[in-house]
Amino acid sequence: MNTFGQIFRFTSFGESHGVAVGGVIDGCPAGIRIDTGLLAANLRRRACGDEPYTACGASARALREPDRIEWLSGLQNGITLGTPLAFLIRNTDTCSADYDAVRHLYRPGHADYTYQQKYGIRAVDGGGRASARETVARVVAGSLAQQILLRRGIHIAACVTQVGAETEPERIIALLKQVAAEGDSIGGIVQCEVTGLPAGVGEPIFDKLSARLAYAVLSINGCKGFDYGSGFLGVAQRGSELNDAMPFQTNRAGGILGGISNGQPVTFRAVFKPTPSISREQTTVDDNGNPVTLRLHGRHDTCIALRAPAVVESMTAMTILDLLFQMSR
Amino acid sequence: MNTFGQIFRFTSFGESHGVAVGGVIDGCPAGIRIDTGLLAANLRRRACGDEPYTACGASARALREPDRIEWLSGLQNGITLGTPLAFLIRNTDTCSADYDAVRHLYRPGHADYTYQQKYGIRAVDGGGRASARETVARVVAGSLAQQILLRRGIHIAACVTQVGAETEPERIIALLKQVAAEGDSIGGIVQCEVTGLPAGVGEPIFDKLSARLAYAVLSINGCKGFDYGSGFLGVAQRGSELNDAMPFQTNRAGGILGGISNGQPVTFRAVFKPTPSISREQTTVDDNGNPVTLRLHGRHDTCIALRAPAVVESMTAMTILDLLFQMSR
Amino acid sequence: MNTFGQIFRFTSFGESHGVAVGGVIDGCPAGIRIDTGLLAANLRRRACGDEPYTACGASARALREPDRIEWLSGLQNGITLGTPLAFLIRNTDTCSADYDAVRHLYRPGHADYTYQQKYGIRAVDGGGRASARETVARVVAGSLAQQILLRRGIHIAACVTQVGAETEPERIIALLKQVAAEGDSIGGIVQCEVTGLPAGVGEPIFDKLSARLAYAVLSINGCKGFDYGSGFLGVAQRGSELNDAMPFQTNRAGGILGGISNGQPVTFRAVFKPTPSISREQTTVDDNGNPVTLRLHGRHDTCIALRAPAVVESMTAMTILDLLFQMSR
Amino acid sequence: MNTFGQIFRFTSFGESHGVAVGGVIDGCPAGIRIDTGLLAANLRRRACGDEPYTACGASARALREPDRIEWLSGLQNGITLGTPLAFLIRNTDTCSADYDAVRHLYRPGHADYTYQQKYGIRAVDGGGRASARETVARVVAGSLAQQILLRRGIHIAACVTQVGAETEPERIIALLKQVAAEGDSIGGIVQCEVTGLPAGVGEPIFDKLSARLAYAVLSINGCKGFDYGSGFLGVAQRGSELNDAMPFQTNRAGGILGGISNGQPVTFRAVFKPTPSISREQTTVDDNGNPVTLRLHGRHDTCIALRAPAVVESMTAMTILDLLFQMSR
Repeated sequence: MNTFGQIFRFTSFGESHGVAVGGVIDGCPAGIRIDTGLLAANLRRRACGDEPYTACGASARALREPDRIEWLSGLQNGITLGTPLAFLIRNTDTCSADYDAVRHLYRPGHADYTYQQKYGIRAVDGGGRASARETVARVVAGSLAQQILLRRGIHIAACVTQVGAETEPERIIALLKQVAAEGDSIGGIVQCEVTGLPAGVGEPIFDKLSARLAYAVLSINGCKGFDYGSGFLGVAQRGSELNDAMPFQTNRAGGILGGISNGQPVTFRAVFKPTPSISREQTTVDDNGNPVTLRLHGRHDTCIALRAPAVVESMTAMTILDLLFQMSR
Repeated sequence: MNTFGQIFRFTSFGESHGVAVGGVIDGCPAGIRIDTGLLAANLRRRACGDEPYTACGASARALREPDRIEWLSGLQNGITLGTPLAFLIRNTDTCSADYDAVRHLYRPGHADYTYQQKYGIRAVDGGGRASARETVARVVAGSLAQQILLRRGIHIAACVTQVGAETEPERIIALLKQVAAEGDSIGGIVQCEVTGLPAGVGEPIFDKLSARLAYAVLSINGCKGFDYGSGFLGVAQRGSELNDAMPFQTNRAGGILGGISNGQPVTFRAVFKPTPSISREQTTVDDNGNPVTLRLHGRHDTCIALRAPAVVESMTAMTILDLLFQMSR
Repeated sequence: MNTFGQIFRFTSFGESHGVAVGGVIDGCPAGIRIDTGLLAANLRRRACGDEPYTACGASARALREPDRIEWLSGLQNGITLGTPLAFLIRNTDTCSADYDAVRHLYRPGHADYTYQQKYGIRAVDGGGRASARETVARVVAGSLAQQILLRRGIHIAACVTQVGAETEPERIIALLKQVAAEGDSIGGIVQCEVTGLPAGVGEPIFDKLSARLAYAVLSINGCKGFDYGSGFLGVAQRGSELNDAMPFQTNRAGGILGGISNGQPVTFRAVFKPTPSISREQTTVDDNGNPVTLRLHGRHDTCIALRAPAVVESMTAMTILDLLFQMSR
Repeated sequence: MNTFGQIFRFTSFGESHGVAVGGVIDGCPAGIRIDTGLLAANLRRRACGDEPYTACGASARALREPDRIEWLSGLQNGITLGTPLAFLIRNTDTCSADYDAVRHLYRPGHADYTYQQKYGIRAVDGGGRASARETVARVVAGSLAQQILLRRGIHIAACVTQVGAETEPERIIALLKQVAAEGDSIGGIVQCEVTGLPAGVGEPIFDKLSARLAYAVLSINGCKGFDYGSGFLGVAQRGSELNDAMPFQTNRAGGILGGISNGQPVTFRAVFKPTPSISREQTTVDDNGNPVTLRLHGRHDTCIALRAPAVVESMTAMTILDLLFQMSR
């Protein structure tokens, strides 16, 4: 259940405040020199967000804790052996005392309650597996997939296109500052485009490219929805408006017909909820069901969407590479 | 690739205008008497849509071709044996001549082009596997899953909540008539609610309940997007507005936190594009890339969303039952 | 659980005395014309065994019931579409009355008891899924895999090399006649050789070629063991005797080193137990645990190994094709 | 491909002479305190073999390099969280210079050649993934599975029953000394028995308990064959001799009928080839295909079967636990 993909397979492990987070990448071809520059750039994007939002996006932890990868296997002189690539990133910024106040209560909007219900036990510090900390391992694996796709001319780019109701960068920045000042958080939308993808990728029926991308993107913390091409916004449009005449000059389909890429750019959106951790006072219950008033301390992300683009790209890259590997026979 | 699920597994087969469509259901517990009433009702809903849209929703084929199930295996005196349940539904309404005009060209908005690119060959009549005809097999399997869930107190209900920009039934009906009269088609939204689901269903990280539902729903023909809880509409809201205080009295989360059900109703939406088959003249290309003008004949669905609720429920039922089976150990 | 393979996937269905047995082949490339000659030949081999044992090997049912394949999907003018190939073979020779005497008791050496324990219900006629009847569907799928491999220069051939303690055909035939006359049955060994397989097939660690072949072969009814290369017979030999010097002039490894093919022929053996159905009087219990004396009527196979070579080849072909598809990226 | 199991899943990583070997255990229930005693005992058995063969079985490396487990995730105060359990064991005894002589040639009986053919690159020191060093990670995961099974009353015990042609301990020890003195190696057989397994475990058709066990056991380094119950030795016996009369008083079936456990002890054998590393002079080729004479130095296992029982038990435990988890719904 912690493994993603069929042929290019990524297994994730690690709690936010445990020893380390990390993963095992299986099914990566041999003979590839890992692009450490792309990897470092994506890790930094995940930590701080993209320009012009880096000042607003960086979490305190991201700034304090550099993500240093320790490779455990699968490499010889920096070249992949075709065997599993295991890696870990130690959790250095884990002050257990920070969580003393919330250890016995369920933070609203967080997964404390559902993990407790599912397992009867939970990592009491930092959200455990449910923390966005886990996505750092996805970016390591996804960046490797992205690198392999780049060599095949397939380019993936995601960016924040909306925060709250705003779509203009300068207005977004102003909104972020205002929300932060109010001790609150706000939702956002990330848009992603895949170019260079040949026609024919995606499996009919269940493993449609669209379905697999939705699965990949909805697995990211805080993601509440996915649409592609005309998506939800096209609900009021007519077939005569949305069908792309052929040969393709428009791309209302979002690059996918019948679940299979048609050679046009693949375009989709993902919406992220506001960070559930806010400074404002909230009401909740403790482990015994008693009502408590909660005020979370520390600096939290104002908008988790800001740091999501690198993760969206990573999940997209792994999805597409896996589908490519599945179809090549 | 034509199999859905890990433990409760459904394998689908069949082309729209081939001998039959059907499937194999594997992993169904032994000792269950199939609820033929629920099955027939869902098949009829898939064929004609739900009230009050049945007059607008029924396809010509749906009306002419009753879906008669032939069970091939896995049953003894109507009781499941625990072995694979294979079934088929013959395609009786397959007039090949209907497709003479479109056999050598790519219908806009359809998967003709992408199948041809992927396989170098395609079923030339009726869209083959890409036809919505295939969903009849999903409804058979999904209804069985739904029946098993009902016994556990889990109820799934989907309905059309929007067509075009309209959300009121009488206005929707008026819009549908107008669109049909114009030889055009229109998009729609289906909403689904799962009640009675206990807390703890869904696997953290990749197999989140939300991600698995998105995968299931996006695999339905014509689906362009999925969101749950506050979804896309919540993008402009604050964390202080969207966090559900505990104990739960609101359900902005849509019943899922950290990918795991929290015991509240699970609510999600799916958006469907307008039927790509329209009576209006369109431009496209033929197999040789030559431009052609196309006018499709016959009666087509005005809005595919109308017939989608039974399919959405079926995919949802299979997803949830499979996750329940995966967690029970 | 009734699906075999990862990329080239075969799903089997059907009870021995139900409507039909059949299967769905998923992941078969498009554009292949099915070799009906190879298919018919293999079905006949499965029904009657190979020369010179056909007179001894054919079951009564095999002779009475020709295996006629009905293709349900995935084909257009005899050419594969790349979509799932579904097929069925009707069970015509199913006289339910034959089983009146054994319906409420557990036949020794059969799976009646274990199915009942597992499912709390079982197909009371003819062994249901546990009958060797099910293997007819495997031969359909396996022959298609075999055909694809043949085009790549990979040849699979299995034959009976031992029955009881005998290894010479004329002595085997004499033994079979004697055993049959005594109303008894006898075990046998099938040997299989794969030639033309390039080096590099098989995945290290768990999906070793040897492990996958063992899994495939042990899934055949009545198979009690598998070994390859020097196998069990090499236990008393020294490393200095068994290591193949390089470049390879001997093949004691059986064509596999570290779970990966080395370019030499792959050789393995499978042992089959005597047919559990014998005419001699046996003691058993009925559904209520009461002791009963049982004498099975009808003509039974004297040695199930005789009809196994086509099934062994089929399972081998699916295994190897699937591994080839998994590695091609 | 480096993942074993469907629900209880173990992913293995690490090269023999890389940083570490280790694994990720996914699907382990929450709330289990790891039995460190069982774990340490099994690791020691894997390193040195069982009594009375420990003096003959221990490899030099095993004696020098204690296997110290570092847990990376999935535990809180020694209790499982239900999340992935990642662990590593550092490779401390990795003198690269030992392999200077063999880095550019293919050791007979080893996987050097097949890895090179498959990947075009290989770990040049110590056999990389193909080394038996990898099995240490299996024993960690398998011991956890074994511990869970023990609580359910299921006991797994494997032991060496034959070395060369000898079956008596004192004669085996004498043989081992003689073979070692000759700089040679010898094969062996490990027998395993599973008691306490209820009837009904194993899936009909492809995931037969026997097939899954064969797959598990053949994945162990050096294993050349598997049989259960009467196995290969029963080939010359009659059906009237091998059928177990009911209620069971004999167990010629080896506890499995139709691929499903029947409540009797499950018994199987695995045969292991002689260690391919021998001190005697051998001929082989180098990377360029030139013939070379090779004499391996260092102390090698005389008989790899001696250290196999803990690994056989571990693979058996994971297989059975996974099948139990798959069936519980």
